[in-house]
Amino acid sequence: MKRRDFISKAGLAGVGGAAAAAASSFPKPSLAQERIEMVIVSTWGRDFPGLGTNAQLMAERIQETSGGKIQVQYFAAGERVGAFDSFDEVASGNAQAYHAADYYWKGKHPAWAYFTSVPFGLTYNEMAAWIHHMGGQELWDELAGDFGLKCLAAGNTGVQMGGWFNKEINSADDLKGLKMRIPGLGGDVMAKLGASPVSLPGGQIYENLVSGAIEATEWVGPWNDYAMKFYEATKYYYYPGMHEPGGFDSLGINASWWGTLSKTDQAIIKSVAGQTNDWMMAEYNAKNGEYLRKLIDEHGVEVREFNDDVYDAFGDAAEQVFEETRQHSDLANKVHESFLNARSAAGGWLKLADVGYSEKRNRVLGM
Amino acid sequence: MKRRDFISKAGLAGVGGAAAAAASSFPKPSLAQERIEMVIVSTWGRDFPGLGTNAQLMAERIQETSGGKIQVQYFAAGERVGAFDSFDEVASGNAQAYHAADYYWKGKHPAWAYFTSVPFGLTYNEMAAWIHHMGGQELWDELAGDFGLKCLAAGNTGVQMGGWFNKEINSADDLKGLKMRIPGLGGDVMAKLGASPVSLPGGQIYENLVSGAIEATEWVGPWNDYAMKFYEATKYYYYPGMHEPGGFDSLGINASWWGTLSKTDQAIIKSVAGQTNDWMMAEYNAKNGEYLRKLIDEHGVEVREFNDDVYDAFGDAAEQVFEETRQHSDLANKVHESFLNARSAAGGWLKLADVGYSEKRNRVLGM
Repeated sequence: MKRRDFISKAGLAGVGGAAAAAASSFPKPSLAQERIEMVIVSTWGRDFPGLGTNAQLMAERIQETSGGKIQVQYFAAGERVGAFDSFDEVASGNAQAYHAADYYWKGKHPAWAYFTSVPFGLTYNEMAAWIHHMGGQELWDELAGDFGLKCLAAGNTGVQMGGWFNKEINSADDLKGLKMRIPGLGGDVMAKLGASPVSLPGGQIYENLVSGAIEATEWVGPWNDYAMKFYEATKYYYYPGMHEPGGFDSLGINASWWGTLSKTDQAIIKSVAGQTNDWMMAEYNAKNGEYLRKLIDEHGVEVREFNDDVYDAFGDAAEQVFEETRQHSDLANKVHESFLNARSAAGGWLKLADVGYSEKRNRVLGM
Repeated sequence: MKRRDFISKAGLAGVGGAAAAAASSFPKPSLAQERIEMVIVSTWGRDFPGLGTNAQLMAERIQETSGGKIQVQYFAAGERVGAFDSFDEVASGNAQAYHAADYYWKGKHPAWAYFTSVPFGLTYNEMAAWIHHMGGQELWDELAGDFGLKCLAAGNTGVQMGGWFNKEINSADDLKGLKMRIPGLGGDVMAKLGASPVSLPGGQIYENLVSGAIEATEWVGPWNDYAMKFYEATKYYYYPGMHEPGGFDSLGINASWWGTLSKTDQAIIKSVAGQTNDWMMAEYNAKNGEYLRKLIDEHGVEVREFNDDVYDAFGDAAEQVFEETRQHSDLANKVHESFLNARSAAGGWLKLADVGYSEKRNRVLGM
């Protein structure tokens, strides 16, 4: 009872406002009776640039594309449940869907990580090829089905930066003992190399960096990092990140509810999720370009490239982390094998195509 | 009158079949009265892998996502009008939309080329950033508006291969006098370097290559090229193509008709177009990886990389071609300036991100 009160109140602050407007102008009483409620909980703060704003836009677009038939109420992290309670909220049927990065659930099963991003993993183009056309969705369905969910790719943040460091990283030895904020499998890779990875929520990173409690941190990329003002505490901004090279977000849907939807309603949700992939990846690439310039020109940030020695060490450590994941279960191993095939085949093509072309063009243009 | 007869007959062979089925099972008579007819003509042959199949899928998805309200009739090239008559068919209002590569219309205005792909141009990720978030759509709207059209990005073929050659290309001198099938601005670039570019429809390339009437040809990439059996006539398959690095397809819509649509119907079409970008690019990357392997393993194709000397020459020639385009009009120059900014800013980011990461990862993995 109390929860339902909270829903309707919180809804007013979110997409619920748009929902009410759409409802009042909707012409067909016969259709009004068919309205479907879709509560989406998310792991992103309200209006968080990129992740939050695109999840909110996706929610609006589902409602708009359905002509108001699907009434979406969107709750940012903490507005209905805490970010990491989103999974249980949807699996239990209390909400119809979450928008999240599925690697948050790797404690429930390590294979979840592959459907967001893993160290030495796939770029956006490779991930999309794998999920849509190389068996990725079928494996995601198998995993999600075990938890009563159906997941759709819905947005991507692209290749992340390697992070902010208070010293130069010239060899793998420079990582030893380094206190760095880097969660998840990326943190596991750093730990193999002797670093001390720590997990910190976004709001606490800056103060820990300024105080020296941590000596390095990764976050996302220039657009999101700019707002965090890490450049005030450290100047070395390393690329490319090995830990999260093309993180898909997931629209995780309660499978029973999904099964009750008409083909039209399923098509609407699939279509908007696909549109979100294209739209959000493009926004990150546009904004990261703009904010990379700002960081360099306005704040004197020194952009540095990890050298081959460091990357070789990352690669060795990532192999060790994968080995542990594979041994978890048949499904984890099957997902890993499918991922390896996509990395090799789609990655092999992109090496000649987008990567090979960009290298040559950029050299000629002096970029 | 005759044309309308043709429409209904041809419709039976295309998406019309699905349309009829959807109509018969659609439950609401009140909605049946609101049905909207959308005729899509395209520049692709029926079932042509990638380009044709994705255009057909897009047409089906528009109808499905609308719950049958938008009744789509899709006509492949030649089924209603010839491929290159699609523009006039839609601009005149005879059809509601085309699916095409907008550079086909560069004879009407050279700026059209930028919204598909130009030599030394943008990859898919850069194009999407430009169109969606860096002013590209607004310029496309301005250009298309002058012709009574509204265009949406709807699919992409990605970076094309450089082409098939009957000899090695070790320097720009090797291009002199070369009879090569390469249309459009890519052909203009080759002509600047002393080659003899020729335009040939797809169905005539193979015989001309076998007879020696042409010594080289580009087509698309491994997936589409495999079906053309060019490997029977030449063995040198060069990458990366400079001529078409990320060709967006366009859903070109009659602007007056677009203006009559409800926000919901516009949202449906926009959503499916966006979904098509994500879906089709992913399919090309998946299939190109698969067919690149087949070409090498099954047919002994020798994949070669254009060297720096050749690419420098391509770059100089592309600059000259651009200079002519810019001088056409204020709009052409404005589009070019906006394109340059996207190439520099989004391209500058991707150099560190997807490109930089892929290079390092691939080296470590021995890919």
